[in-house]
Amino acid sequence: MRTAIFGQGYVASILNVGLERIKKGEIGYEGIPLGDALPLKVEDIEIVTAFDVDETKVGKRLSKVVKRYWDGNINFERDYIIKEGYRDYRGQDAEIDLEEAVGKLIDEYEKKDVDIFVNLITTEHAEPFMDIKELKKAIKKNDVDRISPAQFYFYSVATYERPTAFINCIPTQLANDPAMVQLAKETKTVLFGDDGASGATPLTADLLEHLRERRRRINSICQFNIGGNTDFLSLTEPERNLAKEVTKSSIVEDILGYDVPHYIKPTGYLEPLGDKKFVSMHISYTSFNGAEDEWIINARINDSPALAGLIVDLIRLARMAIDREEYGTIYPVNAFYMKMPGPKDAKSVAKVKAFEMLNRWVNVTPEKEEVVIAERVEQN
Amino acid sequence: MRTAIFGQGYVASILNVGLERIKKGEIGYEGIPLGDALPLKVEDIEIVTAFDVDETKVGKRLSKVVKRYWDGNINFERDYIIKEGYRDYRGQDAEIDLEEAVGKLIDEYEKKDVDIFVNLITTEHAEPFMDIKELKKAIKKNDVDRISPAQFYFYSVATYERPTAFINCIPTQLANDPAMVQLAKETKTVLFGDDGASGATPLTADLLEHLRERRRRINSICQFNIGGNTDFLSLTEPERNLAKEVTKSSIVEDILGYDVPHYIKPTGYLEPLGDKKFVSMHISYTSFNGAEDEWIINARINDSPALAGLIVDLIRLARMAIDREEYGTIYPVNAFYMKMPGPKDAKSVAKVKAFEMLNRWVNVTPEKEEVVIAERVEQN
Amino acid sequence: MRTAIFGQGYVASILNVGLERIKKGEIGYEGIPLGDALPLKVEDIEIVTAFDVDETKVGKRLSKVVKRYWDGNINFERDYIIKEGYRDYRGQDAEIDLEEAVGKLIDEYEKKDVDIFVNLITTEHAEPFMDIKELKKAIKKNDVDRISPAQFYFYSVATYERPTAFINCIPTQLANDPAMVQLAKETKTVLFGDDGASGATPLTADLLEHLRERRRRINSICQFNIGGNTDFLSLTEPERNLAKEVTKSSIVEDILGYDVPHYIKPTGYLEPLGDKKFVSMHISYTSFNGAEDEWIINARINDSPALAGLIVDLIRLARMAIDREEYGTIYPVNAFYMKMPGPKDAKSVAKVKAFEMLNRWVNVTPEKEEVVIAERVEQN
Amino acid sequence: MRTAIFGQGYVASILNVGLERIKKGEIGYEGIPLGDALPLKVEDIEIVTAFDVDETKVGKRLSKVVKRYWDGNINFERDYIIKEGYRDYRGQDAEIDLEEAVGKLIDEYEKKDVDIFVNLITTEHAEPFMDIKELKKAIKKNDVDRISPAQFYFYSVATYERPTAFINCIPTQLANDPAMVQLAKETKTVLFGDDGASGATPLTADLLEHLRERRRRINSICQFNIGGNTDFLSLTEPERNLAKEVTKSSIVEDILGYDVPHYIKPTGYLEPLGDKKFVSMHISYTSFNGAEDEWIINARINDSPALAGLIVDLIRLARMAIDREEYGTIYPVNAFYMKMPGPKDAKSVAKVKAFEMLNRWVNVTPEKEEVVIAERVEQN
Repeated sequence: MRTAIFGQGYVASILNVGLERIKKGEIGYEGIPLGDALPLKVEDIEIVTAFDVDETKVGKRLSKVVKRYWDGNINFERDYIIKEGYRDYRGQDAEIDLEEAVGKLIDEYEKKDVDIFVNLITTEHAEPFMDIKELKKAIKKNDVDRISPAQFYFYSVATYERPTAFINCIPTQLANDPAMVQLAKETKTVLFGDDGASGATPLTADLLEHLRERRRRINSICQFNIGGNTDFLSLTEPERNLAKEVTKSSIVEDILGYDVPHYIKPTGYLEPLGDKKFVSMHISYTSFNGAEDEWIINARINDSPALAGLIVDLIRLARMAIDREEYGTIYPVNAFYMKMPGPKDAKSVAKVKAFEMLNRWVNVTPEKEEVVIAERVEQN
Repeated sequence: MRTAIFGQGYVASILNVGLERIKKGEIGYEGIPLGDALPLKVEDIEIVTAFDVDETKVGKRLSKVVKRYWDGNINFERDYIIKEGYRDYRGQDAEIDLEEAVGKLIDEYEKKDVDIFVNLITTEHAEPFMDIKELKKAIKKNDVDRISPAQFYFYSVATYERPTAFINCIPTQLANDPAMVQLAKETKTVLFGDDGASGATPLTADLLEHLRERRRRINSICQFNIGGNTDFLSLTEPERNLAKEVTKSSIVEDILGYDVPHYIKPTGYLEPLGDKKFVSMHISYTSFNGAEDEWIINARINDSPALAGLIVDLIRLARMAIDREEYGTIYPVNAFYMKMPGPKDAKSVAKVKAFEMLNRWVNVTPEKEEVVIAERVEQN
Repeated sequence: MRTAIFGQGYVASILNVGLERIKKGEIGYEGIPLGDALPLKVEDIEIVTAFDVDETKVGKRLSKVVKRYWDGNINFERDYIIKEGYRDYRGQDAEIDLEEAVGKLIDEYEKKDVDIFVNLITTEHAEPFMDIKELKKAIKKNDVDRISPAQFYFYSVATYERPTAFINCIPTQLANDPAMVQLAKETKTVLFGDDGASGATPLTADLLEHLRERRRRINSICQFNIGGNTDFLSLTEPERNLAKEVTKSSIVEDILGYDVPHYIKPTGYLEPLGDKKFVSMHISYTSFNGAEDEWIINARINDSPALAGLIVDLIRLARMAIDREEYGTIYPVNAFYMKMPGPKDAKSVAKVKAFEMLNRWVNVTPEKEEVVIAERVEQN
Repeated sequence: MRTAIFGQGYVASILNVGLERIKKGEIGYEGIPLGDALPLKVEDIEIVTAFDVDETKVGKRLSKVVKRYWDGNINFERDYIIKEGYRDYRGQDAEIDLEEAVGKLIDEYEKKDVDIFVNLITTEHAEPFMDIKELKKAIKKNDVDRISPAQFYFYSVATYERPTAFINCIPTQLANDPAMVQLAKETKTVLFGDDGASGATPLTADLLEHLRERRRRINSICQFNIGGNTDFLSLTEPERNLAKEVTKSSIVEDILGYDVPHYIKPTGYLEPLGDKKFVSMHISYTSFNGAEDEWIINARINDSPALAGLIVDLIRLARMAIDREEYGTIYPVNAFYMKMPGPKDAKSVAKVKAFEMLNRWVNVTPEKEEVVIAERVEQN
């Protein structure tokens, strides 16, 4: 599985390190949900190139960049050089020939023979296109103010003439943008997204399901997150924070079936916490006979490894989807691994339920699929 | 659904109050997992009698006893008088004619036309019989030192000549005792048990499942519980505490598939906390690339309403089981509602999974049952 | 002690209720730091009038307004009518004769024979005057855009011709504004402020002192606050939130002697939490031999009673200060009761230390000072 | 300051490592309360010998034993060999000549020219002697069943003919045993004790003081501790646990002035937690107007460094006490550093208050006392 990375930051670097250590037998499959339960082996994943726009990274070897995020000793079998990626030209009055920019990226994809792409660039604000014509028009007119880097990267992958997969781990709506999903189908592209479900939100989802199954009426939910990595730093910019907020709040009504006053969002940046964020949650609910209970959950969670572990699965599931020729976006995968599972209007479900759906998707061979789905529909 | 209670304590009293308030439209179905999703209505449950051994309760009206646990105003449509129950005669050198004692209880069952029984007596230490012959021998020989009150109550219900159900909400092994399950089958008795899964243990189960599904390797688990109700008070007696400890620890290995150093038990008694216990949990685990995360969960939970809400379901499920003529013990019910689901050697599963099993059990009509089960086996 | 209130909201109403219940013997002195340790009795406090600008309150009886915040039954001996107060005219293009407005307020002060004033209006943004000439100029020119309601109320009290006291419980800088302190001295006014130290900040102060005394090096501090009262609601307006933020952060460097990355501020509004806010704090520090420890503190705190209890002391201390003719602001009082103790440039100290200072101030008359100190030495 | 250790376990080893790293300039004075504020320098402390009864340690070099507790690289300037100590012969039917055993220990003390001793042996159960005659009788009669190892070690130090100091960091009552204090005075021995105040108890003390100063009425307190070091392991033995329980509970009434239902004790052993224990505390209190608040405090604390940091002070304070010829036990030192500060009947006080007392003791020579007090008054 030849894989390229957009955004050689914390998560990507931990992904590189973890895969290398697994190959060397230093660590096991901890944090990789499907571990050795898939036909494709973790050890067969190869990260072969990466793109970034940070000038202190471009042109550097992977091993050098990784040192910023990991202080252990590590030798990479494939110690690639970080390539220059597509910059955010919005509002810059830039004149860019977008097709040419696409061409340059594709040259590199071909040279490295990549077919799986993981989007890990910094959280950005972006408007979904909704209609594929709008997207095509923007490209044609070199309307750089309309298109975000994540959208552009996806467009480049879709344009790349072979069956590929694009795994969108950031909040930009791609799998939730009907335009992008249609483009994916038309171009034999698998699109997983949006926003990798690491961190506290999947836990919140399962806690809500736990309460729902006991018909406890939730009165309020709050979830604070604070951390010291670039993700939290970037969220101090109001526009980006907005992107994050949209993502996280939808789960409450989707899971419970009713809305509840809630405050769920990344709350602040505190540099010394580094990648190990502090999460604090408060849930108050009413039980039988009007009894008022409350839960307080605190956690210290390493953000980047949590997401990197999921990506190890997603790369392999992407390969499986390509092999099965299931193009567009795949809800049973998104539902488990993503905070805002595409396609648009798909609901969030509790992660325990998503895990079952995922396992069913993994285990079926195409011909049995309809039967299983029929059953599922009946059960719900 | 005409129901009798053994042990008119906190849980029973809150059950009485809550049912009455629901009938009067003062509160909704909060805390009752299956709420209005069952064919049998909550409002059709009738608690018609109760047995206790506390001299300050026997002979008193329900409304008077309830005052100790509930300070609201409440009028009971059926304000029964608490009857004298079966005392713990073990180690007392007592000469009791057990068959006669059974007869006295059954007279009351018949008079009140009861067919569903809920066991809510104080936690006790008891040895399972394992072999039905041993049980019958103990009864025949009036061996009062061998038989605990919970075991005796169950025996009396089994002896009562009509299809009945016995819901065992305390840790005494009944649904986990093959002797009792065999007796249940022989006498057309439904037996649900053991130890109602209120409180923090179901939450722990679902948290472990959440971690398992992400293949995080758990390093240690601790769960403290402290409260001020009689349940916690009785646990200060070492023998009773032992009973509780056995119950709660089995979930770890059952759910994770491997054992983990853990400390999960009721920890202390602190009178001012009353029925609203304080729970504190610490879970430490290893994620991708060796990252060490930790969760700390604190909760304030009203113990009695949590269990009472489950009993509202169990009474109705008991009625359904009698109607379906499914005697003995029923794992899909126990798995969700009980901490130590019978039969013996049945495993604990995550409660989210148990909830699905339960729903399947509820929804099937007998003729379809085999099909569903066959499917389920394949899927696992 | 005849007292007037500015802002008949949650805190004021709980203050009214609590005082009335104490007078009726229903409750004790819980939450009143100096309880019965002062020469002036709690029972001798009389709240005789209040001003507000909320049209749904003005003209209503106290007992009617209190119902919004307290659902118990309560009869007030002095069931006053809420008077109309001074509105925030800034940015409204209003033409107001300020001296006339002062005059109207003073008429009411005189009619009710008030000499102690408690400022409990909603958090506002305000610029300190710094120079008394600026203040006087603004008044003279009727510059309503320059003066905030809290500043105006203080000005009116200072202008009122008798020795008085003004207790500023909100973040507006009054005791921290040299102009206001000078005015206080010139007009025989006692000025306590700013921002009543209820809630989590005093606790944070004492926790930092605890760590400092063990020379543990603090690495980071975060403190989230979320609540559902109007105070939190008003903080969702960015300008007001800013006022709050300034207040709370100064304690870190003042107490530790070095700055530490920290995030300490009201974080959000969640209506169902009501007056009982949820606080979550995380402190990470380095101990001997480089060991890394951490504390997580969660609390549910009733905001209004916490502040109301302090005010019961402050009213009595204000009376004592008037009697001792100590005009201007009094640091030993502010240091314990206020988040941002005036005068300007006075440091925050740990509250345990402030409590000692306070007790010294309470107990000594200047000439007796040596005796008291000698006694204290003996006692230790 | 030539120092000997009884019990070369976790705390002692971290003390050795930390002192060595400070001397090498690798770390600062974190976790040492008085750091560089004492006339005696941290760098002048020399640990010159240690006694233990663990056969896997006796005869080994310090550097080898330390490896069990610390995985960094460290070279000791004085890499002593662990000597055999005094075993617990109680209940062993052993015939030991106690005076001879004392003589053997003293030979080693003299050879190494030690004058300060730190007791860090494993928690033990021991009966105080109360009367010095009883102690002398036990020694004379070789009554090995009457005397615990800690008591014996202290006796040996007192017998050693030079002014010395004995720092008792474990719960055995020595500074709380009038017999031992009298012996200390008679033999020119400084005795600090009992039970080093690391961990959560000092924090609890200061939290209670914080609440007391606001006259909040505490309703209940619970404090769980769980860890994986030998200290927690040994506490699983009921007798030892009892010793610990006595120590910790006395603070509540001493500080608050009234008793409160509480549960404060080491709760369990969980090996993977190692030296970094998990603490969970719950405090519920009533504030003004009957409001019910609650605090939940969770902490991860490295046990051994916390205590080792205190010992760095205690060794230097011991030297100062010897120089000042203040023999017997010294309450102002014990009150801050010990959980159960001697002498017997001395009360626990909040640690913030004890810290002031300590500073006063440190700074004054008897004749200078008045001056210092005068200065302090000026400073405030």
